[in-house]
Amino acid sequence: MPTGRAPDPTVQRLSAYLRCLRQAHAERLQTISSAGMEKRTGISAGQVRKDLSYFGEFGKPGLGYAVEPLLIRLSHIMQLDQPRKVVIVGAGNLGAALAGYQGLRSSVFSLVAVFDNNLSKIGRPLWDMEIRDVTELPKIARERGVEIGVITTPAGAAQEVADLMAQGGIRAILNFAPTRIMSPPGTVVRNVDLMRELEVISFYLPRS
Amino acid sequence: MPTGRAPDPTVQRLSAYLRCLRQAHAERLQTISSAGMEKRTGISAGQVRKDLSYFGEFGKPGLGYAVEPLLIRLSHIMQLDQPRKVVIVGAGNLGAALAGYQGLRSSVFSLVAVFDNNLSKIGRPLWDMEIRDVTELPKIARERGVEIGVITTPAGAAQEVADLMAQGGIRAILNFAPTRIMSPPGTVVRNVDLMRELEVISFYLPRS
Repeated sequence: MPTGRAPDPTVQRLSAYLRCLRQAHAERLQTISSAGMEKRTGISAGQVRKDLSYFGEFGKPGLGYAVEPLLIRLSHIMQLDQPRKVVIVGAGNLGAALAGYQGLRSSVFSLVAVFDNNLSKIGRPLWDMEIRDVTELPKIARERGVEIGVITTPAGAAQEVADLMAQGGIRAILNFAPTRIMSPPGTVVRNVDLMRELEVISFYLPRS
Repeated sequence: MPTGRAPDPTVQRLSAYLRCLRQAHAERLQTISSAGMEKRTGISAGQVRKDLSYFGEFGKPGLGYAVEPLLIRLSHIMQLDQPRKVVIVGAGNLGAALAGYQGLRSSVFSLVAVFDNNLSKIGRPLWDMEIRDVTELPKIARERGVEIGVITTPAGAAQEVADLMAQGGIRAILNFAPTRIMSPPGTVVRNVDLMRELEVISFYLPRS
C-alpha cells in the first residue's frame, strides 16, 4: 500500500485495526481472526481482510493474523512506532477534555504542554500540568521537538495559532475550532468538526 | 442515491456539502460551482460533481449548482429538514464544550437538556440550561420527542446511559466515551473516538 497518499477512510480504518491489535497484544493473544477484528472494530471481516492483504502474509488460514508482527508493521505505516509529542492550544472545556485523555500519556502520544492567551488561565493547573502562555509556544515546541498541535480555541484565534505552531516547527495540526483554517507552509492541517458527527448520525436515523 | 445505506465517507461529504450550501445561501448566492465548493469544503471539484450527479440535474454548465434547490434536497436526504432534538449525558469538560456549540441552538439541532448523575452537578447552570438528573432522562426524552442522544460520560457509564436513552425513545446515539458500546434495540450508535484523529494525522505527517 502506498503510504502518505492513502484516502482518509482507509487511514481511519488502519487506526482502528491498530488499536484493536494493541488491545489483543495487551491480552497476550498470539493471533486474531478477521472475524475477531470485526467484533472489536465494527469493520466487516471482508473489509479487514481486503485492507490487510496489502501488508503481506500476516494471515494464516484457520488461525488468523499474527498479532505482534502486524502490530509492528501497522505502527510503522501509521508513523506511530515512536512517541509523538503533542501540544494543545486553548484551555477551555474542549482543550481540558482532550488534555485529560490517557491516550496523551501513552507510548504513542505524549502531551508536552497546554497553552492559552487568557491571563486568568495562564499559570493555573490543568490535570498534571500548568497552563502556559501561548506566546511561549514556538520556543517550547522547538526545544521539545513537538510534532503535533491541537487547536481548541474559538474560531477567531485558530489561524493565528496555526501560524504560531508552524513557527515552532510543528508539522501536523488538528483543528477543533469551528472554522476551516489554511495550512501554514510545511504543515498538514486536519479540520475536525464535532457538529458533523451529529449530521452524520441524523442521516442514519431509522427512516419511517 | 439509495438512502440509509450510503457508506460513511459519502455521508460525511454530504454533510460538508450541506454546510457549504447553507453558508452560500446565507450569503445570498444563487449558484455555486464545484470549484467554489472545493474551496469551501476541501473536497475536490471532481468528487463534488460525482457525488452530486446522483441527485439529478442541479448543475448548469458554466453556472454551477442552484444553491437553494440543492440545499433543500440535501437537507431532506440527510434528514435535516426538520429540527432534531438532542440531549447530552455527562456534564464534564467534553459535555460542557458540546453543550456550548451554537449549532445545537439552530434550525437543525435543538439541545433540550444536559444530564449528569453527580449530585454536585445536578441543578447547576450550564450555559443557558440547568444540569438535570440522569434518572429523569427517559421521561424527559419521551415527553419532548428527543431523537438524538450524545454520551460524554466516562467509559464505565456509557452502556448504561445508552440503554436509558433507548428507554426514552431515542433512536440515534453519538458516543464520545472512550469505549465501544452495543446498540440497544431500535437504535443506531456511532462511536466517536477523538484519539483516532490524532492517529490519522500522524499518518499524514510529512515523511522524510
